[in-house]
Amino acid sequence: MITTFKKIMDAQTQNKSMLCVGLDTDMNKIPEFLKGSQNGMLEFNKTIIDKTYDVVCAYKLNFAFYEQYGIEGMEVIRSTIQHIPSDIPIIADCKREDIGNTSISYARACFDYFKCDAITVSPYMGKDSIQPFFNYSNKLVLVLALTSNPGSSDFQRLIADGKPVYRHVIEKTSTWAARENLGYVVGATHPQDLSEIREDVPDRLLLIPGIGAQGGSIEETLKANGNGPAVINVSRGIIYASHQEDFAAKARDQAISYNRSLNR
Amino acid sequence: MITTFKKIMDAQTQNKSMLCVGLDTDMNKIPEFLKGSQNGMLEFNKTIIDKTYDVVCAYKLNFAFYEQYGIEGMEVIRSTIQHIPSDIPIIADCKREDIGNTSISYARACFDYFKCDAITVSPYMGKDSIQPFFNYSNKLVLVLALTSNPGSSDFQRLIADGKPVYRHVIEKTSTWAARENLGYVVGATHPQDLSEIREDVPDRLLLIPGIGAQGGSIEETLKANGNGPAVINVSRGIIYASHQEDFAAKARDQAISYNRSLNR
Repeated sequence: MITTFKKIMDAQTQNKSMLCVGLDTDMNKIPEFLKGSQNGMLEFNKTIIDKTYDVVCAYKLNFAFYEQYGIEGMEVIRSTIQHIPSDIPIIADCKREDIGNTSISYARACFDYFKCDAITVSPYMGKDSIQPFFNYSNKLVLVLALTSNPGSSDFQRLIADGKPVYRHVIEKTSTWAARENLGYVVGATHPQDLSEIREDVPDRLLLIPGIGAQGGSIEETLKANGNGPAVINVSRGIIYASHQEDFAAKARDQAISYNRSLNR
Repeated sequence: MITTFKKIMDAQTQNKSMLCVGLDTDMNKIPEFLKGSQNGMLEFNKTIIDKTYDVVCAYKLNFAFYEQYGIEGMEVIRSTIQHIPSDIPIIADCKREDIGNTSISYARACFDYFKCDAITVSPYMGKDSIQPFFNYSNKLVLVLALTSNPGSSDFQRLIADGKPVYRHVIEKTSTWAARENLGYVVGATHPQDLSEIREDVPDRLLLIPGIGAQGGSIEETLKANGNGPAVINVSRGIIYASHQEDFAAKARDQAISYNRSLNR
């Protein structure tokens, strides 16, 4: 049984890439000739995957973009996942949480039904809301710690016992599972905090979104992250690199260019 | 345009009921003769609705139970919602959150696609993660404050500036929208805290789960809540009252019995 953690590390070595492409596919933002249909959305994803699978270490699907289209969107998630080569790990970015009895069902949805390798979860509801995901001992749970958005300052940065809530989240949750099963989401928009987080959890895998459209800098992020295992996500900056027929070729160019910066 | 808030109040008056039935329907927990199929699950929900719609003030669908069955589960959500009488409000209990750009899609999924009246959201990611839901000015957003599960003590009760995180959540978010659009989830398992919350937000609508299977007491909950607008949810205690052919009649008996206690 290969763990998701190892699968990510292997893909990073094989493709010389820390880059995760975020398939945040919106039916209304894809090129005109694919717009407005479920098939177009799927075609868009498949073409992006065909052109980038050898330069990424993972794909991340943000479920929200698909859920807005209901059942049709769910079908696109399923077919997209089937199209991803089996050695490239898939992160379900769905930020789920619920009481223990119910989280079990979310774990089944993500790991059994959609066959994803990792999931993002929110920590607000605490231990019993996250624990059911650890029953899948080869899978990886990525807990929201310090998110990339402006709202991250509202509650994640409240100071309790001399340190921000997000550091309590990291400190406490890191006792719940080994690094093979538990990593964190830390936004690239907070490089100073990222470097402090790295002191606390040097060997945990971090999923780092917020590069590109959200304003995070690659250079500062890499410096802050040091040598820790990390997956750097870029979504809009890659998948919407062009709105013409050449969108996938341009996405590949962008992915290679990001990769070059990440490997510098 | 009638708001969800008013729709709930009207249903409470009409049916003399503060009770919300949680349709947390698990394909493996329903009576034997309906077990194991999407149609059975839908039949179960429809029969429960037919027998209880005149004694409830809302139905709550926890999406996790349906998502575990993927696309088939989504179809059950959609058909169940279509079966609910139009004057009974529907709460999508899906605890969503994401960055602003993405939360818009979750709002569309819940309000446009599934036609729900209210949604539960998690506050961890802050203001821009919740704000897109307020674009639907007749809908109700229920923010997780103090949840009913054991894990609620892990982070919700951290003390910052002399008060727990969940009270910061209530204090801050209550400035983001009027009471017609923003209420809270507070578990029945914390009556003492509930009564303090009521002092802070006497007129906000509270969705109160945790009665029954989770151990919350009706009497203590009502006392702590005082006269504030509240929806009391019971899921397993009603829908699984019997595992025989009479499950819906027994669910009705249970609903009436809960209602009697709530109206005492």
